[in-house]
Amino acid sequence: MKSCLDCIPCFFDQTLRIGRMITDDEKEIKRLLDEVGMMLKDIPLEGTPPETGRLIQRKIREITGNIDPYKDLKNESTEECLRLYPSLKKEVEKSSDKLLTAIRFAIAGNVIDVGPNKSFNIEEETNEILRKDFAIFDYDKFKQYLDRADEILYIGDNAGESVFDKILIEEMKKPVIYVVRGIPVINDVTYEDAIHAGLDKVAAILSSGTDAAGTVLRVCNAEFIELYNNSTFIISKGQGNYETLSEEKRPIFFLLKAKCHVIANDIGVNEGDIILKGPNSDYLEG
Amino acid sequence: MKSCLDCIPCFFDQTLRIGRMITDDEKEIKRLLDEVGMMLKDIPLEGTPPETGRLIQRKIREITGNIDPYKDLKNESTEECLRLYPSLKKEVEKSSDKLLTAIRFAIAGNVIDVGPNKSFNIEEETNEILRKDFAIFDYDKFKQYLDRADEILYIGDNAGESVFDKILIEEMKKPVIYVVRGIPVINDVTYEDAIHAGLDKVAAILSSGTDAAGTVLRVCNAEFIELYNNSTFIISKGQGNYETLSEEKRPIFFLLKAKCHVIANDIGVNEGDIILKGPNSDYLEG
Repeated sequence: MKSCLDCIPCFFDQTLRIGRMITDDEKEIKRLLDEVGMMLKDIPLEGTPPETGRLIQRKIREITGNIDPYKDLKNESTEECLRLYPSLKKEVEKSSDKLLTAIRFAIAGNVIDVGPNKSFNIEEETNEILRKDFAIFDYDKFKQYLDRADEILYIGDNAGESVFDKILIEEMKKPVIYVVRGIPVINDVTYEDAIHAGLDKVAAILSSGTDAAGTVLRVCNAEFIELYNNSTFIISKGQGNYETLSEEKRPIFFLLKAKCHVIANDIGVNEGDIILKGPNSDYLEG
Repeated sequence: MKSCLDCIPCFFDQTLRIGRMITDDEKEIKRLLDEVGMMLKDIPLEGTPPETGRLIQRKIREITGNIDPYKDLKNESTEECLRLYPSLKKEVEKSSDKLLTAIRFAIAGNVIDVGPNKSFNIEEETNEILRKDFAIFDYDKFKQYLDRADEILYIGDNAGESVFDKILIEEMKKPVIYVVRGIPVINDVTYEDAIHAGLDKVAAILSSGTDAAGTVLRVCNAEFIELYNNSTFIISKGQGNYETLSEEKRPIFFLLKAKCHVIANDIGVNEGDIILKGPNSDYLEG
């Protein structure tokens, strides 16, 4: 999915929020915004939003020397989600369709995203998404692919959210490789965050090697690319992974909440809708 | 009121929306955004938001050669409000406090603002504001100042909204000078728009001479400044006028809806609140 003009004000909004995570010095934050302003003319809209965001985040790292401004917030998110974990597990246990309830929770966890959103309440969100209708619901296809898969490539999105991913992984009852970002990007899940969430108990954890808030394939490492190219069942969580993988011809299931109108338009749904979207081509027939 | 860092993403959002009013050519709009990006480092935050916006709007005029991108939209807004006028007048007539109802309508009209808002429904807004509590309500002071005034200086804000201002002017039953912008700025009311709304039937119309979406005193003309300095009762409509006059020690009553969190914070109210705020110093005692 290409960036669009609407992404530009949002890039400045993200820069502002990252700046505020790093410092209270308004002049320092203004300097970050000025630098992004000067970069703008060299940023084409042909790239996906995470590709552009990557250039901006790199600039912010260079200027501030802070490589992980969301570290504390990520830890707090993970702790909060770990506290919710036992009650969510009980909810899954007592539901009539455990896999579907786990999918709903995995999507609810996707609200923990400081990129497009300013605030969220994870408990409220979880309750809402348990009852919400899907705008796209390729659940039967999901189960078919799951049945036939020997191994699942599960591309994580945000820290904290990964605790919810664990619940889904436990319900799928197949070997899982859980993919994390190469270095900290906003509040995206890294190796360290995945361990904190306990993902190592249920999956092998692998870094995609990307420094973007998504899966920018041209900068991913060889190990991930090989697994990606050979996988028969890929789960892609969240907006950043959707933005970077939406045009791929691979057996990818996108689980996300459309949190901005640009992505909602691209998918053909309304802002706020929840989505379980399978691949267009039918890989099962191949 | 000074600009703050939160205004910066909003400046880009406004540039994008103005660009879209002018052209469908995404590359041309990207160029506008690039130019604003390059200006950013030279824009200090000491100025008020309309002072900064003024520099950006001037740049957009230079690049596109379009001095009035909102012309058609302003005409449509005025026509829509003129259609509502008879029913609003009836509502005022049957109300127990005609002046207050007219004040409420004047504030409701302030929702016709393409600066901070993306969409609005003027009829819904009018119904809502008729019932809404004021967050700041200096109505007694307003009536005192009105009683003693020989003449009212009424600083208008947006086109369309001026039809609602006419209703308030008719209820105040005093001579009024209605102040408009010097040239078109976004959808702000100009001389031509005020005539279209019928303001010339109830007030003398005067241009403040400013090319900003507010009242930037240092660029206003001498005639306005003299009236402003000698007026005993000034009504300031909307956000742009609040942003540029909020620190003035003059007998100003601000009528507005706080449509963005920056202004709401400055006033000390919540976003969406309606305000009738009189001067702090008591000019009546002087």
